[in-house]
Amino acid sequence: MKLVSFEYGGQCRFGHVTDDCIHEPSEGLRQRFPDLRALLAAGACDALQQDAGGRQLAVADVRFLPAIPNPDKILCVGVNYRPHIEEMGREIPDRPVVFVRFPGSLVGHDEAVVRPDVSTQFDFEGELAIVIGKRARHVPCERALDHVAGYCCFMDGSVRDWQQHTMQFTPGKNFQKSGAMGPCIVTADDIPEPALLQLSTRVNGEVMQRAEVADLVFGIPALVEYCSTFAELLPGDVIATGTPGGVGAARKPPVWLKQGDTIEVEIPRVGLLRNAVTDEIRANPS
Amino acid sequence: MKLVSFEYGGQCRFGHVTDDCIHEPSEGLRQRFPDLRALLAAGACDALQQDAGGRQLAVADVRFLPAIPNPDKILCVGVNYRPHIEEMGREIPDRPVVFVRFPGSLVGHDEAVVRPDVSTQFDFEGELAIVIGKRARHVPCERALDHVAGYCCFMDGSVRDWQQHTMQFTPGKNFQKSGAMGPCIVTADDIPEPALLQLSTRVNGEVMQRAEVADLVFGIPALVEYCSTFAELLPGDVIATGTPGGVGAARKPPVWLKQGDTIEVEIPRVGLLRNAVTDEIRANPS
Repeated sequence: MKLVSFEYGGQCRFGHVTDDCIHEPSEGLRQRFPDLRALLAAGACDALQQDAGGRQLAVADVRFLPAIPNPDKILCVGVNYRPHIEEMGREIPDRPVVFVRFPGSLVGHDEAVVRPDVSTQFDFEGELAIVIGKRARHVPCERALDHVAGYCCFMDGSVRDWQQHTMQFTPGKNFQKSGAMGPCIVTADDIPEPALLQLSTRVNGEVMQRAEVADLVFGIPALVEYCSTFAELLPGDVIATGTPGGVGAARKPPVWLKQGDTIEVEIPRVGLLRNAVTDEIRANPS
Repeated sequence: MKLVSFEYGGQCRFGHVTDDCIHEPSEGLRQRFPDLRALLAAGACDALQQDAGGRQLAVADVRFLPAIPNPDKILCVGVNYRPHIEEMGREIPDRPVVFVRFPGSLVGHDEAVVRPDVSTQFDFEGELAIVIGKRARHVPCERALDHVAGYCCFMDGSVRDWQQHTMQFTPGKNFQKSGAMGPCIVTADDIPEPALLQLSTRVNGEVMQRAEVADLVFGIPALVEYCSTFAELLPGDVIATGTPGGVGAARKPPVWLKQGDTIEVEIPRVGLLRNAVTDEIRANPS
């Protein structure tokens, strides 16, 4: 099943997708579960599929939100594919390199990501993200996938100079609307072996990144085990698993995103996340 | 005014404090503002003070929550006092070192912080935190304090070995219930010059850290300017401004927190945040 969050008629909504049709839950189900996070927390995805009587909307008529618009946590993993580690001149880490994105740094599918006006070094990073379905604390590798609700495309847009201001990545990874997540979460029952997935990132149609998820240094079970050792992972939490080689910063000359570019992160069976790039337009400062 | 979030009768509530009495808002006000974050977002602190007809509770009868239990963002600043920079063998950074804590890593005043069982290197860091009152994006230093709702004591409990697993601080700063924030937010009208505040941290009554907020490398206005350049700061967001010298890790021999210890972070005019230390007891793994 493909779970989606979207805006329609000025309201945040969710549903599931078949072909080009979004099936909204019935009024009763929406009363019980105001958003996808609540649905996941209740373990009620099946109810969504069996539900009838909700409205159907054309995909073309909605505005996609980040697949989970309001997660408690977005954990991102850096330098987790060997070719990317080499191109960035780093070493293979002993433990997962974990940084954080705030929800406000993400947009949904088909929304523009924003190149900030304080930098020209805006870069793409295509990734596979997992979404937690069941609370996880101290979960060993062997049972980690039991806690994964599904999989989603992720674009970890990075402002490289701000990422390198200090040793902490936070600023360069948290510019408002600089990344994306979507279009849908494909539930785990449809992806029994996530390590077999393949990822590619295109900019203006040209393939810039291509990788097998099997090549992750720390695979999905290891990431869930590690993160759940320090934090309590909650339904709807997101772990972006890292980007492969080929980012713009590592190219000679570097390739920086500019207004009008289009970034596509495609993971067959999971989805295609497309975002244009737009320059920041400052509102009245406040 | 002193704003407080607390649990009473199994419910999360808020109010303001005078002496040992918590004044809850009236039913009408609570309908409009379910939590402190909503109150701040509406700029309605005055309404709380003028409100009448709400219940009064003894401070001793409530369980303190983190002063803002559900912030959108908790930004923490590292190595921001010179003596702490020197004791950690780091250099004065060109820009603020910004990392993130998740809300689940914090408890309120008088709750125990939890020493995780995967480490013995649990350390204290007393800090002054600011709470954002008014949306802030691209706010210059000169107007930064207009966006600060108030001030609060903060204990940035740190699991040092996990903080040093990689160059990213995230894991060591996000163990569940390893830090604290409270007891109250003192509103900015009561603290016209936050740079004049003084901070001390005691462990079992012994002074371990003492500093003047004026000695911050990056002061409060500079932190608001920097963080609001990449992120949209929202009402209720927290910026913990950094810890002074004297942390346990830098002592010879190191001083690690253990079960039964008591940590006190005191900032005269802002408050006294007290937390005991307890060892982690694992629930059934899940």
